[in-house]
Amino acid sequence: MDIETTMREIGAQARAASRLTASATTAAKNAALLAIHDELDSSRPALAAANAADLERGRANGLDAALLDRLELNPQRIDAMLEGLQQVAALPDPVGSITDMDNMPSGIQVGKMRVPLGVIGIIYESRPNVTVEAASLCLKSGNATILRGGSEAIESNQAIAACIVRGLATAGLPPSAVQVVATTDRAAVGALITMPEFVDVIVPRGGKGLIERISRDAKVPVIKHLDGVCHVYIDSHADLEQALAIAVNAKTQRYGTCNTMETLLVHEAVAAQVLPLLAEQYVSAGVELRGCEATRKIIPEAVVATAADWAEEYLAPVLAVKVVASLDAALEHIARYGSQHTDAIVTTHHGSAMRFLREVDSSSVMVNTSTRFADGFEYGLGAEIGISTDKLHARGPVGLHGLTSQKYVVLGDGQIRQ
Amino acid sequence: MDIETTMREIGAQARAASRLTASATTAAKNAALLAIHDELDSSRPALAAANAADLERGRANGLDAALLDRLELNPQRIDAMLEGLQQVAALPDPVGSITDMDNMPSGIQVGKMRVPLGVIGIIYESRPNVTVEAASLCLKSGNATILRGGSEAIESNQAIAACIVRGLATAGLPPSAVQVVATTDRAAVGALITMPEFVDVIVPRGGKGLIERISRDAKVPVIKHLDGVCHVYIDSHADLEQALAIAVNAKTQRYGTCNTMETLLVHEAVAAQVLPLLAEQYVSAGVELRGCEATRKIIPEAVVATAADWAEEYLAPVLAVKVVASLDAALEHIARYGSQHTDAIVTTHHGSAMRFLREVDSSSVMVNTSTRFADGFEYGLGAEIGISTDKLHARGPVGLHGLTSQKYVVLGDGQIRQ
Repeated sequence: MDIETTMREIGAQARAASRLTASATTAAKNAALLAIHDELDSSRPALAAANAADLERGRANGLDAALLDRLELNPQRIDAMLEGLQQVAALPDPVGSITDMDNMPSGIQVGKMRVPLGVIGIIYESRPNVTVEAASLCLKSGNATILRGGSEAIESNQAIAACIVRGLATAGLPPSAVQVVATTDRAAVGALITMPEFVDVIVPRGGKGLIERISRDAKVPVIKHLDGVCHVYIDSHADLEQALAIAVNAKTQRYGTCNTMETLLVHEAVAAQVLPLLAEQYVSAGVELRGCEATRKIIPEAVVATAADWAEEYLAPVLAVKVVASLDAALEHIARYGSQHTDAIVTTHHGSAMRFLREVDSSSVMVNTSTRFADGFEYGLGAEIGISTDKLHARGPVGLHGLTSQKYVVLGDGQIRQ
Repeated sequence: MDIETTMREIGAQARAASRLTASATTAAKNAALLAIHDELDSSRPALAAANAADLERGRANGLDAALLDRLELNPQRIDAMLEGLQQVAALPDPVGSITDMDNMPSGIQVGKMRVPLGVIGIIYESRPNVTVEAASLCLKSGNATILRGGSEAIESNQAIAACIVRGLATAGLPPSAVQVVATTDRAAVGALITMPEFVDVIVPRGGKGLIERISRDAKVPVIKHLDGVCHVYIDSHADLEQALAIAVNAKTQRYGTCNTMETLLVHEAVAAQVLPLLAEQYVSAGVELRGCEATRKIIPEAVVATAADWAEEYLAPVLAVKVVASLDAALEHIARYGSQHTDAIVTTHHGSAMRFLREVDSSSVMVNTSTRFADGFEYGLGAEIGISTDKLHARGPVGLHGLTSQKYVVLGDGQIRQ
């Protein structure tokens, strides 16, 4: 059977299952999540064996150390997966909640009911724990899922899939509610993203290249996250102690995350005071500084920043630094070079804070705190399937709500339209 | 200058204007709407002359009577346009409202601010009053707009555009906040829907062919509405007087609208009682009935419905009628043949009502009222740019909120991530 036909069968099964998951009770969905937890827990030896096979093949194929690390399913990571399932089971069920039920002049009542999107396709790389994370969030939000992991993790993912299928069966939910694609054929991705009759939305998780390719070729909506070129702007009216703590935390707390600051903007009125203190901390943390001309007059150890630096997502201990003449110049820089992900201002001035919040067109805008807080858990969503830099539908960290839609519910007692 | 270059210039100007409209005050936006009102009111002779030229050319080109009617801008339609502008000015401004500002364990406060989408492209046919309707809704929601009307209405649309530009100038807003494409070259549409760097979303308004073509070729998200194959299901537990009134109203109140019922489903327990009474009213209203076998046993004047009838949006005095054995059979029929637009149940049974509301996957689900209520004004949105049958972002009637997004707003006083 060719790959196109296989994927269409998977799609048709997912579509059929989605009608059952959409009307599944909260109790049944939670029972499935906890049954999957138990199946994974009792399958640790099988998971370890499958993962060892993936790691061995990966080493033989010359995968680099970072990829091999992401691929590894050690006992701590399995514990984290199990804990994640319990957390998702404990979250409130978003499906079926009715809000804003108001009376209209005609006598009808109009409100909105939260409903699943239907079938969600997830495409991801290396980390096998994503299989459980994504499956659990989609299931809790009443969706059916088709998961397509990386070929390097195929054995691990299939071992996890077997546990998921057994867990679904225990709870009386259809096994095709979560399907993990068993082939490593790349054509499977092409098929998955071009069957709108079976798939309602695609969530790609991985490198920028993967996401760009999927966004370009998909025939269904994509909830995606491209760059995270995040800024912290230290205003002329900043509390300098806060400014130092935030600017250091936003860069150095973790280097490889999308909400890490990549460019620091400093108002010229405070640059001479704040930059030397910051440079000291950055240099001692091993952060390479790339500065504009004004920056390099204050911190000569900074290398020259080129135009490309302002648009770069380093994901590394490198920071671009620019001195700006005004809040307007900072806003202009962010509008021009930012990626509409997360940007923060440090200021004590109310008007500057409000202008920054209103005028910066990013999925998260912050006052006096670190960009590193842009995260589903920190925002109280309880979980996160990713961070969206799109404007339509879900924007910013995407939790269970982002995997649902709302439909209008209209109640009457015989009203007709005049 | 070629059309591609022209459209990219229009796009770049719209993008620049969108930063100004996004931060425009409510007062400035309302002043612009009322200034456009006054400009249109004092330009009635120019509008009439331009429209007469369009009509004359349309007649010479052999446009049919329905198209010529839609093209006509008579004094009553200009009055309606003017009233629409005042209504939109009177609506609450959605931009900048902050909701759900909650405290997180880390000490930060997280909420959501409603913001414009950016640049909205509208593609429509014949009716020149859409130019004003669409421009006013986009402007009030803080977006810049690029409007591409039908070539048959080019003179009327350009006359309206001149009034809009003068009105924007009066209120101190940039003239490129609303741009009406001046060329009738079809390549302009192709360019408009494939420049994601300048356009955030496309709203096509028109026939199914236009919308399908745009959805297929667009490189930006499309808020769209395809079919309206709407159902009314009369349950075995229905109040028959309500059932008759609703089923007649849903079909006959207007034939050409997307929320008109196209298929009537009747539970077999009440079919013999309700169908003859309904048939009498439909026939006297001139509605052609196409029935399943069971229907034709009760109302022999119905012609045979083929499989194609169940999926047909007639937009005409024709109705498909099917007798079903159960609520499950009705749900199954709607899932198979419906277009996820608007479906209603007539029932006195609470459990049946709740199952219908939960399980029918349509943008509007209704109990004991007419599908004709699926409308932005009837839902209290104050205005409507269209009805979306998509699930992502906006679903159902789309008002000002559907033309906006939400971004996360995070307030701290020095918090850093641990």
